[in-house]
Amino acid sequence: MEINHITKRFVKQLFLKPLDVDVIRDAKRGLIDFIASSHYGKDDTGVKKLLNLAVPGPAKIIGHDRYTTVEQAALINGFMAHALDFDDVHHEFRGHPSAVILPTLFALSDEHTSGRRFLHAYTIGVEALAKLALSLSNVHYEKGWHNTSTIGIIGATIAGAFLKGMNEKDTCRAIGFAATMAGGMRIHFGTETKPLHAGIAAKHAIEALQFAEIGMNVNDNSLEGQIGFLSLYGENTVKKAEAILLDTSTFKWRLSKPGLWFKLYPCCSGSYFGIDAAQRIGELAVSDIEEINITFSNNSDAALVIREPKTGEEGRFSIEYIVSLIFSGRPLTLESFLPEEVDDEIKTYMKKVRRFNNHQAVKKYTLIEVKTTDGNVITVRGVTPKGSPDNPLQTSELEEKLADATTNADAILATIHNIENCTVGSLVKLI
Amino acid sequence: MEINHITKRFVKQLFLKPLDVDVIRDAKRGLIDFIASSHYGKDDTGVKKLLNLAVPGPAKIIGHDRYTTVEQAALINGFMAHALDFDDVHHEFRGHPSAVILPTLFALSDEHTSGRRFLHAYTIGVEALAKLALSLSNVHYEKGWHNTSTIGIIGATIAGAFLKGMNEKDTCRAIGFAATMAGGMRIHFGTETKPLHAGIAAKHAIEALQFAEIGMNVNDNSLEGQIGFLSLYGENTVKKAEAILLDTSTFKWRLSKPGLWFKLYPCCSGSYFGIDAAQRIGELAVSDIEEINITFSNNSDAALVIREPKTGEEGRFSIEYIVSLIFSGRPLTLESFLPEEVDDEIKTYMKKVRRFNNHQAVKKYTLIEVKTTDGNVITVRGVTPKGSPDNPLQTSELEEKLADATTNADAILATIHNIENCTVGSLVKLI
Repeated sequence: MEINHITKRFVKQLFLKPLDVDVIRDAKRGLIDFIASSHYGKDDTGVKKLLNLAVPGPAKIIGHDRYTTVEQAALINGFMAHALDFDDVHHEFRGHPSAVILPTLFALSDEHTSGRRFLHAYTIGVEALAKLALSLSNVHYEKGWHNTSTIGIIGATIAGAFLKGMNEKDTCRAIGFAATMAGGMRIHFGTETKPLHAGIAAKHAIEALQFAEIGMNVNDNSLEGQIGFLSLYGENTVKKAEAILLDTSTFKWRLSKPGLWFKLYPCCSGSYFGIDAAQRIGELAVSDIEEINITFSNNSDAALVIREPKTGEEGRFSIEYIVSLIFSGRPLTLESFLPEEVDDEIKTYMKKVRRFNNHQAVKKYTLIEVKTTDGNVITVRGVTPKGSPDNPLQTSELEEKLADATTNADAILATIHNIENCTVGSLVKLI
Repeated sequence: MEINHITKRFVKQLFLKPLDVDVIRDAKRGLIDFIASSHYGKDDTGVKKLLNLAVPGPAKIIGHDRYTTVEQAALINGFMAHALDFDDVHHEFRGHPSAVILPTLFALSDEHTSGRRFLHAYTIGVEALAKLALSLSNVHYEKGWHNTSTIGIIGATIAGAFLKGMNEKDTCRAIGFAATMAGGMRIHFGTETKPLHAGIAAKHAIEALQFAEIGMNVNDNSLEGQIGFLSLYGENTVKKAEAILLDTSTFKWRLSKPGLWFKLYPCCSGSYFGIDAAQRIGELAVSDIEEINITFSNNSDAALVIREPKTGEEGRFSIEYIVSLIFSGRPLTLESFLPEEVDDEIKTYMKKVRRFNNHQAVKKYTLIEVKTTDGNVITVRGVTPKGSPDNPLQTSELEEKLADATTNADAILATIHNIENCTVGSLVKLI
């Protein structure tokens, strides 16, 4: 029986894999980007609403001089990090790892928590959710689930269990609680409930750990079998799903390879291949454009749920809006994605955009074809957008992103660069 | 667009349907049984564990002289009501309605809450979850979801919204949060996590209402469409699911017809048809039995997940154990379902039991065939177990169930029988 205990074998693999210098460096980059994204989102309207729920407690609300309960800190910090869709992405996970894992880990940390163990827990969390997502298959997302939340809760729970020094058995029990609380539907994309999912998953991860700690009985092998998590939420056969989960053929940590994808622009990652293509086309007068045809590979526009945005905020999930910004010479900065009405010039561009999908694509891409009024056709394929693992942001660019978000960047960076020799408490004070 | 707003039409139907005297009477019966079941479960080991999480607050923990936060009260009271599997069932819902709805409603009530409105909210909650379950189809449960939790959270949210006087629009928003937190896997059956699901669903229903109240943006039509709740969690086509949800051909409230199913025995309702059959066969010496063959209609033993129970507690989910109790002349009382080792006599009976399934059955039943050592065959079909809507418990029997559970039964009953003229606060003090 034990030999088929998929959940335990998964946890054992995650916990025993040794850290290396590459992943420590990359985890620090993730930490910088997470704090930057959180500070950009700290005064978001949704954060202000959630602060109504925050009763006093020991855990810091990032960017605020305020402490709340561990559960509410996880909720609010998770929301904040993902509020502007400016936080990191992992393409194997097809979701936002840090916005779920790091709020869980920060909420569980105190002045005694080792910085090195924190980075290690984060690395394990990213590994766990990437492998879980691969195991469930892409169809999980396409059917309507929001991976950041459905899978995120389990990754955050495993990361939290490692941080707390839980043994394998109790970690498997905590996974049981996390799996049975897994939820999150993509139908809410384009509303505040998308970032709220990150917060809910982080909060529920904390609760899963609490249920394990107080000793509630639970099936500790909840991932396995016909009515287990992999089968119920996934689309692979049970056998295939379990094989993918336990595959050890990749040597590197997934936080390093393929690695986290960091954003230069606060909009949905589904638009990034299109941004790459549009930027290479450059500015175009609207009067010169006959039509703009955008082709996505294999439903890679699934997260771009809005075709006719009424506001810049909605435009965050609209390739029509984002491409129109670029062709009209506007910047892809926060100012372009505010809850203000889309202006007439952009509307004129947007009317010319049509979307297509190539379901036979081998590799992910977005192709933009502009037919001009003088009969020319410009065709550019976006394949390696800036920030993606194949065309990564430099650490100095991440540091600039942080410096633009907070006046405290120097102290935060000094602490992060030395975090493996500090406690997490020394960082929490600064953020 | 509005005309196709399935979620809003569903809420409108629920909120506008008038109460009648039958359903008021039946809701009171449900309330008596809920309080009885909760008191039987109040000292369960799991409750003691959960009490570790209870920080002080305004909401009463049933059966304890202790008050905690609204959220934790919902969690603990939900667990408690379902701890012994002694609480009511609704067969269209295929779950335990009161253990989710009533902890939510009690947690939201105070000394100003109208008793009549409370009964009305409860009635609406049961209606909502029965219709949602029919809409998702039986396959939802069979795939591995735990309806008490996955659907229960939405029923409890709608009931809570009505109790609080939320308008239709905000109720639809609250449903959005509930649907996106829906979870609960049957893989945990046979552990404390089964009753914990009732508590988690009640707690998350409270949180869904809070998110709606603080004004978080959300898709308020989350049940509808290809990536909506009915499609993502259900097995019917979207069109069929939506039609079932909005069907108004049944005039009676579902709390009255088919009605709640109350239990005389603290064990899984999946065993009740078998109990009916075994009791009609009566006591049998183990030495006279060659074999015991039990045939269930259409996977109706899905919840009876344990075939070789080690303890009486596990035996709660084992037809093998329960039938052996009856044939050996033991009572189906709490004492038979304790976490104590199964004795040798029962083991000898259990070894003779085999299970079968008839997948072509038209009506639900359990058939027991006993082949005796002298070559006879006794065959009895259980079709209308005591407590089921076709063979209901008398109100006096429910009152006895309560009187066996608490010394305060007289005062509780007097208040419930007059609850439409009282506030819920007057009842909460007593329970």
